[in-house]
Amino acid sequence: MKAFNDLADFSNDEIKALVALASRLDAHPEPDALKGKVLSLLFLSPSLRTLASFQAAMTRLGGGSFVISPDMSIHGLETRPGIVMDGTAAEHIREAVPVIASYGDAIGIRAFAERKNIEDDLQETEFTALTDLIDTPFINMESAMNHPCQSLADWKTMDDLGIPSNGGKFVLSWAYHPKALPLAVPAATLHMAAKRGMDVTVLRPEGFELPDQLMQKATAAADAAGGSIKESNDRDEAMQDAHVIYAKSWSSTRHYGDRLADQKLREQHLDWCVDESWFGNAQDDCRFMHCLPVRRGVVVADDILDGPRSVVIPEARNRMLAQMAVLHQMLGGR
Amino acid sequence: MKAFNDLADFSNDEIKALVALASRLDAHPEPDALKGKVLSLLFLSPSLRTLASFQAAMTRLGGGSFVISPDMSIHGLETRPGIVMDGTAAEHIREAVPVIASYGDAIGIRAFAERKNIEDDLQETEFTALTDLIDTPFINMESAMNHPCQSLADWKTMDDLGIPSNGGKFVLSWAYHPKALPLAVPAATLHMAAKRGMDVTVLRPEGFELPDQLMQKATAAADAAGGSIKESNDRDEAMQDAHVIYAKSWSSTRHYGDRLADQKLREQHLDWCVDESWFGNAQDDCRFMHCLPVRRGVVVADDILDGPRSVVIPEARNRMLAQMAVLHQMLGGR
Amino acid sequence: MKAFNDLADFSNDEIKALVALASRLDAHPEPDALKGKVLSLLFLSPSLRTLASFQAAMTRLGGGSFVISPDMSIHGLETRPGIVMDGTAAEHIREAVPVIASYGDAIGIRAFAERKNIEDDLQETEFTALTDLIDTPFINMESAMNHPCQSLADWKTMDDLGIPSNGGKFVLSWAYHPKALPLAVPAATLHMAAKRGMDVTVLRPEGFELPDQLMQKATAAADAAGGSIKESNDRDEAMQDAHVIYAKSWSSTRHYGDRLADQKLREQHLDWCVDESWFGNAQDDCRFMHCLPVRRGVVVADDILDGPRSVVIPEARNRMLAQMAVLHQMLGGR
Repeated sequence: MKAFNDLADFSNDEIKALVALASRLDAHPEPDALKGKVLSLLFLSPSLRTLASFQAAMTRLGGGSFVISPDMSIHGLETRPGIVMDGTAAEHIREAVPVIASYGDAIGIRAFAERKNIEDDLQETEFTALTDLIDTPFINMESAMNHPCQSLADWKTMDDLGIPSNGGKFVLSWAYHPKALPLAVPAATLHMAAKRGMDVTVLRPEGFELPDQLMQKATAAADAAGGSIKESNDRDEAMQDAHVIYAKSWSSTRHYGDRLADQKLREQHLDWCVDESWFGNAQDDCRFMHCLPVRRGVVVADDILDGPRSVVIPEARNRMLAQMAVLHQMLGGR
Repeated sequence: MKAFNDLADFSNDEIKALVALASRLDAHPEPDALKGKVLSLLFLSPSLRTLASFQAAMTRLGGGSFVISPDMSIHGLETRPGIVMDGTAAEHIREAVPVIASYGDAIGIRAFAERKNIEDDLQETEFTALTDLIDTPFINMESAMNHPCQSLADWKTMDDLGIPSNGGKFVLSWAYHPKALPLAVPAATLHMAAKRGMDVTVLRPEGFELPDQLMQKATAAADAAGGSIKESNDRDEAMQDAHVIYAKSWSSTRHYGDRLADQKLREQHLDWCVDESWFGNAQDDCRFMHCLPVRRGVVVADDILDGPRSVVIPEARNRMLAQMAVLHQMLGGR
Repeated sequence: MKAFNDLADFSNDEIKALVALASRLDAHPEPDALKGKVLSLLFLSPSLRTLASFQAAMTRLGGGSFVISPDMSIHGLETRPGIVMDGTAAEHIREAVPVIASYGDAIGIRAFAERKNIEDDLQETEFTALTDLIDTPFINMESAMNHPCQSLADWKTMDDLGIPSNGGKFVLSWAYHPKALPLAVPAATLHMAAKRGMDVTVLRPEGFELPDQLMQKATAAADAAGGSIKESNDRDEAMQDAHVIYAKSWSSTRHYGDRLADQKLREQHLDWCVDESWFGNAQDDCRFMHCLPVRRGVVVADDILDGPRSVVIPEARNRMLAQMAVLHQMLGGR
């Protein structure tokens, strides 16, 4: 495996094999699989779960990792091409990324969306500029519009819970959050549920529609897998018979990059906080998923997070297991 | 071992077995003992020795660890229950702690005393709130009123030096420091020396008495082990025939949580800096112990720290060895 | 090996053996060589390559490492001897360094030049004060006037490229940079190329001469190895038939420690930015080396860095391999 960048790059059988490998490595540890192997971890954006779970994953497989992030005592990294570097940044990504990659057998890279121009972000301009610098196998640890490690973990989480793929009803719901967050998780989640063959509803207020390009990608995946995609701003309609609600806040696409306009619009939707009232016509055991971190009392009510619907902790643990499967395949674990 | 939280949870035979295991692992390394095992390290308070020694300990046993601390580029952690998280903190400990724990086979947690209300701190309200969130085996890396890893290392240090348990004379002395420090180390040290069966004197100025609850716990331990506890503010009396002086500054318990009153009181005791004049009627080879970090010229004179009485460096190294023993037992090293 | 502090401490045969071992470990990994061994890494100055490459090196050899740096959530470290520590620093290097060293089988230490007084820096006053505190084998990860890990990697890089030792022409060139940088890399590089037996020219403007002590050390090394040393401020003369130009900015030695005077002088040399025009009379395949980080458009033109002359990425990767060889010898790899 040369890259783990997008679930769309893999067939459903390949995804199922990764999920099965993740479960096998959980049940039957392989502490010699990646003996002496190194994963370089480059965080250009903050992290908790990804930071911890990749380090743990490499240790469990007998290898190791190191972390470089811009808040460490390193020289700032310049990203602009062709610039005369007479300011504060002492190093350019054109050197830093290949060097960091050269110390590892693979590299994980995280770089959140710039959120200035939606076309740039949809085209993964920044992330591709980074990965184009290297030949080393790489893992997307969250880019502008993707988070394949989260999606693989989420797929496994639904498998673990026996949530049906074909016929399973998946609601991806926008939720209120005081900040304009990236689209990476909703984009990846929508596509993952579609690719899993589920009937997916994107529930969101007006102005928070996902970009056409993402909807089309998900629709193609749904068509291939026997699932479906629809959009709604009607909570009751969307939640009808739902097996899963996956809550996540994201930026207004109508006002992408315009923080003030985004804020004005989102503040009209403070009531988009998932609580028990949302589940009236859902499946009795409808689950609550979220990639974390989640703001209690803002995105979701405490009693949902602390109650039996929530699967956020095993979902987060599946990050480690899913990544172990990816690393095992990528780095030649036997 | 489900938790290493308090030396009081272990019999003296169990402590002696841990100390023996620590020595054995020093003499006979077991680099396969914890192959592929992961220790999660959560630092909600700063650290040098604990940070370094736990990482080194896991490596020496063939496993690994990862570190999460609030000064890393992660989202701030909210601790208050039931709060609506519309401020700066993006994640609640109710999610963060179980997730971090789920990536490890065990978790170490450090959270210093809040030092607002002595009852809350004596009851370990904050630390218990953290450990109640998890089922994973955990290690107390210093809580409001405990530091069992330091105490196990200190016990071993005295064994290494041949300092007697029954009949050994141990002085725990307050020392001047410009800041009002937590009670964790004096609390743990007092109990450890008592449990070891030593004759313990707590030497401190008026206003720096240790809380009754801590004195009673230590007295019970001393009674069970054939030792004794007394308090004094008279240096000569306390140091009579001492085998060890363990210096440490701590907050005024009379003015707990009141920084100005504490400061006014402590500044009357600038002369509580251990120097050679303290040792006039002690054992000739009376040792100086301190958990570090220590302020030179403030808590202790340079010539003591740099001279033959000081055992602070091997004492600090014993942190690693003691923790290796705990990890070996906790994580099923063979 | 008790210390890897200066290439001058090793015979040319010993250096060649280290380079050969580095290549062997690259071709034939030894993931059990340092099983359970720990390298302590103390960074008193910032780092990217050294930080990453030492961690990767230990993992590849089956051991591990931990990192302590002053920007972590630790108590500040006091360095002044005999001081009364009633300020902000809570710990003295006299305790911190031996403790950190005691957790490892070896320790790497980085401490850049203070750049106040050139005599102190030439005598390695600060670095020696640190290493005098310990008996543990240590590695110089860059001191005031040395960077032996860089030099060993650079030696290997030239061997990899087939650049001749005797008869090879090496130009160490000053380059413009907005800041007054340390002399460690030019000092180590000059000596390395001389010791390798090359004909070395130090190309620099007036006021940026390297100190006599460094020139004499390099001259002695050149004499022993059959090479030569000269200085020039004439670019064409210096570059004549050059196999390698090694660019690096450094402080004005005429105004050492005087930032304003240094700045005034260096700003007269904004044109010392290596571009293709420099290579007119060099060997056709003359290489460009730099230790990184490098400022594009300031120290060197983009087209050189991105073109076939540049070997900075494999040069940086050789850091890891060179350090693996040092660690393998130092820590008893079999």
